[in-house]
Amino acid sequence: MHDNMTIDGERLWQDLEALAQITDRERPWTRRAFTQRYLEGRAWLRHRMHEAGMTTRLDDAGNLIGSLTGSEPSLPPLATGSHIDTVPGGGRYDGILGVLAGLEAVRSLQDTGIRLRHSLEVIDFLSEEPSEYGLSCIGSRAMVGKLSPAMLDFQEPGGERLFDAIRRMGGVPEALGEPLRQPGALSAFVELHIEQGRVLESRQLPIGVVSDIVGIHRYDILITGQADHAGTTPMDLRRDALAEAGGLIKTIQQEAQRQAQGDAYLVATVGRLTVSPNASNAIPERVEMVLEVRSNDAALLEGFFPPLLEETRRQLAGSGIEVAAKSLSEGLPTQCADEVQAQIAAAADSLGLGTLSMPSGAGHDAVYMAMLAPTGMLFVPCLDGRSHCPEESITRQQAANGCQVLAETLRRLDQL
Amino acid sequence: MHDNMTIDGERLWQDLEALAQITDRERPWTRRAFTQRYLEGRAWLRHRMHEAGMTTRLDDAGNLIGSLTGSEPSLPPLATGSHIDTVPGGGRYDGILGVLAGLEAVRSLQDTGIRLRHSLEVIDFLSEEPSEYGLSCIGSRAMVGKLSPAMLDFQEPGGERLFDAIRRMGGVPEALGEPLRQPGALSAFVELHIEQGRVLESRQLPIGVVSDIVGIHRYDILITGQADHAGTTPMDLRRDALAEAGGLIKTIQQEAQRQAQGDAYLVATVGRLTVSPNASNAIPERVEMVLEVRSNDAALLEGFFPPLLEETRRQLAGSGIEVAAKSLSEGLPTQCADEVQAQIAAAADSLGLGTLSMPSGAGHDAVYMAMLAPTGMLFVPCLDGRSHCPEESITRQQAANGCQVLAETLRRLDQL
Repeated sequence: MHDNMTIDGERLWQDLEALAQITDRERPWTRRAFTQRYLEGRAWLRHRMHEAGMTTRLDDAGNLIGSLTGSEPSLPPLATGSHIDTVPGGGRYDGILGVLAGLEAVRSLQDTGIRLRHSLEVIDFLSEEPSEYGLSCIGSRAMVGKLSPAMLDFQEPGGERLFDAIRRMGGVPEALGEPLRQPGALSAFVELHIEQGRVLESRQLPIGVVSDIVGIHRYDILITGQADHAGTTPMDLRRDALAEAGGLIKTIQQEAQRQAQGDAYLVATVGRLTVSPNASNAIPERVEMVLEVRSNDAALLEGFFPPLLEETRRQLAGSGIEVAAKSLSEGLPTQCADEVQAQIAAAADSLGLGTLSMPSGAGHDAVYMAMLAPTGMLFVPCLDGRSHCPEESITRQQAANGCQVLAETLRRLDQL
Repeated sequence: MHDNMTIDGERLWQDLEALAQITDRERPWTRRAFTQRYLEGRAWLRHRMHEAGMTTRLDDAGNLIGSLTGSEPSLPPLATGSHIDTVPGGGRYDGILGVLAGLEAVRSLQDTGIRLRHSLEVIDFLSEEPSEYGLSCIGSRAMVGKLSPAMLDFQEPGGERLFDAIRRMGGVPEALGEPLRQPGALSAFVELHIEQGRVLESRQLPIGVVSDIVGIHRYDILITGQADHAGTTPMDLRRDALAEAGGLIKTIQQEAQRQAQGDAYLVATVGRLTVSPNASNAIPERVEMVLEVRSNDAALLEGFFPPLLEETRRQLAGSGIEVAAKSLSEGLPTQCADEVQAQIAAAADSLGLGTLSMPSGAGHDAVYMAMLAPTGMLFVPCLDGRSHCPEESITRQQAANGCQVLAETLRRLDQL
């Protein structure tokens, strides 16, 4: 083990600032996948990878991969990375920290003359954030063969197909559908990311070791009543879709609070809701809303909503109010590999940085990479838990801590 | 009393069809106040009034008034009428029935050679429905001096002031603010309207005698939490504005159902609601909604929401979620004149038509006319209680029944 390798926190910070500046001027910190601004960011990143002595390539999915050859090039490479695309209006550190910390780890290895046995890849996955094509994690999905022909047909509002957008980004969409890499093609994958929550900050801990990544179930719920006149329709003749939706939303919150008391992580949110006709003097006829349930426990995840739906239907039987629910997505939880978790924890410990084992409540490219290789994630705190907004913020020290633990983890994984 | 005067139901029906046809072709049955289509409707109506032997004029508020001179012209006139403007997308009979039934009553009087002692006015009030200027009952408000200079300054989204719009309709906005007519200027006012509810239909009764018109209190309610990530924010760290709004909406419904059990009429509706940021993976930060409470009992009306607001605030104390409420309007109930109610009931009874004494849950121009003169209203049923929508429908017989009772009521009021 080399005890004197340290990453350059200042150099990392300057990279974070430089890439963040490649943003839509009128709406910082926006750098949406598939845009000209995004290509500008990638060109900058590719140049920095070359400066660090890496070779770079685009795979058929449009992922940008920088490689540093190891001393035993026949070994399956180690990989790290994240994404440089952002949501609209936010993402100053979300994604880019994981990519640029990987780059800084490579530079620090070069600077100290350490050569890993394994080749090391730094991957910038294409379009991790929800895109205009109705899909997230496009590059990592495609790498493991989970981007179906139907998904390639998805269109953005302007009518462009995802198929054509991937080609625009330099990918080869005809080659997708089958896995680009098989299980075993990588020895391990580690991703550093901001926490996007308040848990580490509230406990004043610098490093989170991710135990598992929540599965996400989304439901489109449609409640249909009747749009009568709000003045002339007595209370007992109403079919008010919003009053029933209101009761259901409150019940969902209370039930999630109750189930979250246990050992597993569970959250449930109605974040999106529209009312029709939405006039102050009309009884709401129709409420459409999206329920999102996340848990690291598959049984809790799958068992949360069906009984609430059944109970709601039972209560509304004969009322003339209908409740329909359609599943929008049914992702299962992803367990992080024990050996990667152990190396992250040991690396942090060796650097004197406290850790917390915690689930990830957000989805990440690591979910798909776990199908290829032993996979782990580490988190650093972010200010007040905010992310996906202009206020998203981390300190130099937090970034440097994460990068140092990532580099040390890769070095330890290289020894296994 | 003349026992052989009957209105011509077929002629009334043809007028209803003819005026309804003056509509926006792409969105029947729309004839919005202040539009070219509306002026076209008024030109048609004015012509029909002249054909019926009436003189016509526009008053300073832009109300179109047809007059038939009585045998004792020094008596304060009797008046009837309603409005020919509609909401967007609906109003095939709403409003125009009251105007055209007044016109048909005049023609029937002429046809049978009956001359009333009082002059008789048929009034088409300007813009009864909620207008683009943020106000309803513009003509009747102005007639009684309740259209303030501040209201005349209201603008539609294109920037035109109500002041200028009234002038465009032929009114004299400089003259408004003071009453155009003083109490006692009319001997009585009677308005026929469709019920806009299901009460008469469900009881199979042809005529509703309106006892009072509900007062309307509207509140703008703003609930403010925090827009955290829906995946990474544990249930106990959330400030979810929509979950609290949902609970409040359900409580409002339950409390209104409870209070509606008594003798007075009370309804409460949250019809309008917007969520921000309204994304499936973001905890709702902000919910804005409009609560409308209507009752014919002033104490119930004023006492409904304040205790619910206070209880909600008590429950949310210390949660970081704020609830603010602003009063948008505070109209009080209007009692219909006993003598007018009695004459409507007697008229229906003499025609063998069953009646129900009932409150009006909708506001009407009669609310303002009650400040000038003894005022009453009668209702006819409409299909399934629907109004303000393209499906709004009544039968020829229902229209004829209403017109016949209106004509007979006017004849009886003339004798008092």
